[in-house]
Amino acid sequence: MQFRLHTTDSRTKARAGILHTAHGEILTPAFMPVGTNATVKALTAREVWETGARMVLANAYHLYLRPGIEIIAKAGGIHKFANWPGSVLTDSGGYQVYSLADLRKTTDEGVHFKSHLDGSSHFFTPEKVIEIERALGPDIMMPFDECPPSQAPRETIERAVYRTTQWAARAMEHFRRTQTQHGYEQMLFLIVQGGTMRDLRELCAEELVGMDAAGYAIGGLAVGEPNEVMYEVTDWVTDALPIQKPRYLMGVGTPVDLVESIARGVDLFDCVLPTRNARNGQLFTRDGKINIRNAKWKNDYSPIDPETPSYASRNFSKAYLAHLFNADEILGLTLATMHNVAFYEQLVKEAREQILMGTYYAWSQQFRERYEQSNIPQGT
Amino acid sequence: MQFRLHTTDSRTKARAGILHTAHGEILTPAFMPVGTNATVKALTAREVWETGARMVLANAYHLYLRPGIEIIAKAGGIHKFANWPGSVLTDSGGYQVYSLADLRKTTDEGVHFKSHLDGSSHFFTPEKVIEIERALGPDIMMPFDECPPSQAPRETIERAVYRTTQWAARAMEHFRRTQTQHGYEQMLFLIVQGGTMRDLRELCAEELVGMDAAGYAIGGLAVGEPNEVMYEVTDWVTDALPIQKPRYLMGVGTPVDLVESIARGVDLFDCVLPTRNARNGQLFTRDGKINIRNAKWKNDYSPIDPETPSYASRNFSKAYLAHLFNADEILGLTLATMHNVAFYEQLVKEAREQILMGTYYAWSQQFRERYEQSNIPQGT
Repeated sequence: MQFRLHTTDSRTKARAGILHTAHGEILTPAFMPVGTNATVKALTAREVWETGARMVLANAYHLYLRPGIEIIAKAGGIHKFANWPGSVLTDSGGYQVYSLADLRKTTDEGVHFKSHLDGSSHFFTPEKVIEIERALGPDIMMPFDECPPSQAPRETIERAVYRTTQWAARAMEHFRRTQTQHGYEQMLFLIVQGGTMRDLRELCAEELVGMDAAGYAIGGLAVGEPNEVMYEVTDWVTDALPIQKPRYLMGVGTPVDLVESIARGVDLFDCVLPTRNARNGQLFTRDGKINIRNAKWKNDYSPIDPETPSYASRNFSKAYLAHLFNADEILGLTLATMHNVAFYEQLVKEAREQILMGTYYAWSQQFRERYEQSNIPQGT
Repeated sequence: MQFRLHTTDSRTKARAGILHTAHGEILTPAFMPVGTNATVKALTAREVWETGARMVLANAYHLYLRPGIEIIAKAGGIHKFANWPGSVLTDSGGYQVYSLADLRKTTDEGVHFKSHLDGSSHFFTPEKVIEIERALGPDIMMPFDECPPSQAPRETIERAVYRTTQWAARAMEHFRRTQTQHGYEQMLFLIVQGGTMRDLRELCAEELVGMDAAGYAIGGLAVGEPNEVMYEVTDWVTDALPIQKPRYLMGVGTPVDLVESIARGVDLFDCVLPTRNARNGQLFTRDGKINIRNAKWKNDYSPIDPETPSYASRNFSKAYLAHLFNADEILGLTLATMHNVAFYEQLVKEAREQILMGTYYAWSQQFRERYEQSNIPQGT
């Protein structure tokens, strides 16, 4: 068994488990920082490790375009290339390709698109993406899917569900027909689409569950729909997925989104928020977000966040971080990123402990209340 | 004694010593990475420490303008502000103020100038700069000096020597009249000017030596003059300085400049080269410089530099670093900076060992030969 459940909460659907990968055990719920280009932006590999993260997300589409899969394959795979001792999951790039609205053409076979870097022409199929991910060597591979806007008309969503399901079957078949290239086992998760329509989500889930993947992802959320809708869709989908397989909610979310989605049975997350917002000077704390560029922090000598156990959070003052941001110093980006990722990792770690103790619901309510009721101004 | 000489080389003027500061012992020859804004660009404090650096250079002028000296004074001084466990030397900003050609007006009293950040008006005097450095709290303070272009007409250099000497006397007097603000001892070094004119350098040195400072700097070099001229001027000045005081060659230089200047009796260096060039993708190796953006490194899986003992140099391949630079990833700047600073620190450490062993001259010749005769292309 690659995934083992320790506990399911009695009051919510929250679960504590462990996911065995070729590069180590992932305690769930888990949060993956985003490392699109085989680097979590502004952090060294050992700094990422120190945040508590044990699996990072990279992007097959981006790495295929740059540096190219041969470069990474010849290095012995993405772990060796990036000197990352933990696990890696690669997103297929379905989301990225669908963002290239004017530069792509989709058929049932696959997607023709032009590179956002140099305009060169490429053709991705479900099989091709599996080949790319075999070469890159992540522990967990995501298949090529069709990711429509969540508010798209029903027929657009229906077609996306149909294609995603067809492509999932082709990906599974190609996955089973091919071998690892780097001497360790890889897993393939499948992605449930269906926008915000319950019947389509359930239909898609049912089809994919029949394919017996190692894990299931919920795609196409956190793309503009209200939070409560996202939580509801998550709830439907986790109900339709097998208990014994890990569930991964893609691209989500805020700290409250994590807490609420864990309560709905999600085991795995990735999101750019902690890293991207850090680079804009926004820091996550138990009392809500703060913007370090706000003038009030200029002479605040308290630590960035004494509640988050990271080198950055505890050893540098807000005044110093504010100075680094005001002076456009790279170190500001590094310290803020280190703090935010550690905050997220601490959050899922604590969630797991609360699930194991049977106190998740009360803890999640307290977390949300304190986070949302804070009077800390959001700054500019 | 704040400075103690262990050994003077028999064949060259190279010296091995130890400089005692309020924040630790500095083994000399020593190299200070530049941390203008109270951060060595792209490195955390612990990464700087790990390179072997034990003293960093910050800039009083920049910190006075941003974040302002009160912010740093209230933090308990620059070490606490930046959470740097080692020693700090602050340059006065004389060089920076003189670079503001159109924005300054100099009198015998001091310099009126406009901030390069917001155009606000300021007036620096030798006394004012001492006040700033008392507030910032570096271990070693540099006085306000007049730093003319090295190729300026003789009368310009003469006036700069006259002013620098007058201002040095005022700085020393103000230094002696004022107290530390942060509970530890500070030192004031004085700066020898005089362009490339031997009599002016010797005159300036003689005047300053009479003031009995804790150490002496050689200013106004590495500003465009040929290397051999810089070495010669350094040679004159160190001959004119007392044996028992440390000598600091400001803003110098390349690895070969360090090796040659150590041979001429210099104990202390700072330079932006390792940090600035790193951010442009230029790496220092024993075989000369390489530019990591050069296409030839794209699939070179050898370590950045197996001869330099840093986390970056030994754990990441040139191929990975090339990818990070091509993808404009911040981590590229961090790894390159970590390597280059470690290279410089390793260089002065090895120089010291060779001086102690009595083999400095032969080693320095070998170093220079290998560094300069390399066939590694410089890239773009």
